[in-house]
Amino acid sequence: MEFIINRNSFFEELSKATKIIDYKTINPILTGVLIELTENKLVLISTNGILSLKTILNNENADLEVKQTGRILIKAKHILEILKRLDDDLITISVVENNEIKIKTTKTEFNLGILDADDYPLIGFREKGIELDLDSKEIKKAISQTIISINEWNKKITLTGMNFKTKDNHLLISTTDMFRISQKKIPLETNRIENINLTIPHVSIVDLSKIIEHTKKFKILINEAQVTFILDNTIFQSNLIDGQFPNVEGVFPQEFTTTITVNSKTILKTLNRADIPTDDNLSPVINMQIQQNKILFKSLITEVGTFEEEFNNFTCEKFEELNINFNTKFLIEAIRSFDDEMIELNFINNVKPVVINKKGSEELKQVVLPTYITN
Amino acid sequence: MEFIINRNSFFEELSKATKIIDYKTINPILTGVLIELTENKLVLISTNGILSLKTILNNENADLEVKQTGRILIKAKHILEILKRLDDDLITISVVENNEIKIKTTKTEFNLGILDADDYPLIGFREKGIELDLDSKEIKKAISQTIISINEWNKKITLTGMNFKTKDNHLLISTTDMFRISQKKIPLETNRIENINLTIPHVSIVDLSKIIEHTKKFKILINEAQVTFILDNTIFQSNLIDGQFPNVEGVFPQEFTTTITVNSKTILKTLNRADIPTDDNLSPVINMQIQQNKILFKSLITEVGTFEEEFNNFTCEKFEELNINFNTKFLIEAIRSFDDEMIELNFINNVKPVVINKKGSEELKQVVLPTYITN
Repeated sequence: MEFIINRNSFFEELSKATKIIDYKTINPILTGVLIELTENKLVLISTNGILSLKTILNNENADLEVKQTGRILIKAKHILEILKRLDDDLITISVVENNEIKIKTTKTEFNLGILDADDYPLIGFREKGIELDLDSKEIKKAISQTIISINEWNKKITLTGMNFKTKDNHLLISTTDMFRISQKKIPLETNRIENINLTIPHVSIVDLSKIIEHTKKFKILINEAQVTFILDNTIFQSNLIDGQFPNVEGVFPQEFTTTITVNSKTILKTLNRADIPTDDNLSPVINMQIQQNKILFKSLITEVGTFEEEFNNFTCEKFEELNINFNTKFLIEAIRSFDDEMIELNFINNVKPVVINKKGSEELKQVVLPTYITN
Repeated sequence: MEFIINRNSFFEELSKATKIIDYKTINPILTGVLIELTENKLVLISTNGILSLKTILNNENADLEVKQTGRILIKAKHILEILKRLDDDLITISVVENNEIKIKTTKTEFNLGILDADDYPLIGFREKGIELDLDSKEIKKAISQTIISINEWNKKITLTGMNFKTKDNHLLISTTDMFRISQKKIPLETNRIENINLTIPHVSIVDLSKIIEHTKKFKILINEAQVTFILDNTIFQSNLIDGQFPNVEGVFPQEFTTTITVNSKTILKTLNRADIPTDDNLSPVINMQIQQNKILFKSLITEVGTFEEEFNNFTCEKFEELNINFNTKFLIEAIRSFDDEMIELNFINNVKPVVINKKGSEELKQVVLPTYITN
């Protein structure tokens, strides 16, 4: 095997492929990246068991020149460090002996050990199924806004993933850990949408958001037990979580007794003061006493002391006096998912969840249950 | 005790004071910062046993307003987090009960536990002695250039510090771990200089360089067993290391057979390629074959592979063929201490040290012994 390739493009795609690798795996073969070189393209494949990635380099996107085809399994970590330190635009990679490759530029030469490609699992990539075309930036943002409500160690396995569902010409992205719910609604352009309802594992969502960064085109393909994301020249395929995801819209309260409108950044500042980092990293309970013209925030920060603040920078549409407790971290994460904008906190009573949304918008909803623990 | 103070100034000085604290100490009292409030100033004191710091805040530099004098010992870590999260320019701090202080702004109030100030050791700060006025930027740079040759775990205790010595109207700053030497020469302005020769512990040097950052005025005071650094409103006092520091100038070679002139950044790029990070983080041995018009660099990177590069971007004044081995990390650190400038590598033979300096300058010298281990 021998090929010439653009160093930068090869570096970019190889680092993408390594992002999903789990270096703690007990099977060292899975820490490798498979290179399949055919006459006019170079395919990089990596996997961590739950999800797999395939990315394609060719003459157009990577100045690829194939001298001799072949198939090898490389240790990508060190090769990335080498590529980073080289200066030349083009590099030549060739197999020199059974267990070695040579990376060569004008004046520099590296000889490196490789793994046995025959031991690598055969991974089938499905490139057909129900298609959803989406804006990659919108998906990236939706992931970051909703991932907060997943507890990846939840005992209820269905809750360890992110649910994608179509409803009334919208894609609903939902997460919940039973203490809070996040839901994002994305309008879909196409008219004839088949019903989908699937739950993607937390680890796949995390890896997807690492890779989505500079993607232009983004497409989701759904087939039986798997979901495939097509990101420009990269195919990213994940197993799904079995089982019915709870119908979270069904539990959203609709009627509220108190609605507070506040700037997200302003209230976050106060909440952050209530949440001074402690050695054990436990977030305190925050007590909110909502009165006509002021909210009194109180928290007891373990091993640090007490916090108390009077808050007035809000307006109130509907109002009833409340005395309600929340996990400070949950409230902070929910509010932080909004931009610097006016948000509404909708309350029912001291024991029912608060529903948070941007003022006048149902696009993103954050629901947080109060806690019964008091200070 | 009660005072009003500018939040930013108090934050800055308190973080300075905490920089030297060793949170792993077995004596929890030493993790506190002592506040001594007298009629017109607030003194912050901290220590880690080897070095102590004292910084003074007053009305001029921190809008201090003293309501009631006193002396308390605070847990600074959490207070810094609180100060960071407050918005007001001024804060009020007062003792509310024996074991609590209150931090108060217009709308926010924190009540925090404190430590017992009576348990804090009495620290005497010496503010007299032989004086050296120095430029703080120059000292900061000299420290970063020479600290590389200290092995803080060296069995020879005298070598675990940085030696400051006056000689011929210059301050010589020297370090060595027996495998390499770093020496910086700083011209002194004053004419009547008393001879000094002292060795400052590695930990004090590290902490000093953390604090020196934005200092304008810098002065060193030397007295019997201690050295005191005066940095604007902060006094920083360190114990010294007993024992005679080796006379490193005495071992500097003067006559060379081969002198190579090269740009520091150019040769660093090559050396970094020879030094790909491995899992065990051991730096490889680099072999240099110096010939008339080229240098051949070779290294064997454990668990990765081999590196080979032909290097031509240099000029040669004196020349004899050489085949010499170095610890790659030592060579990189020595060369990196120079700016992006032309440097000279002066060789004698395959077993004698290389002496590195800026072309035409003796201000900074880096000496690295070759290693006898070959690839």
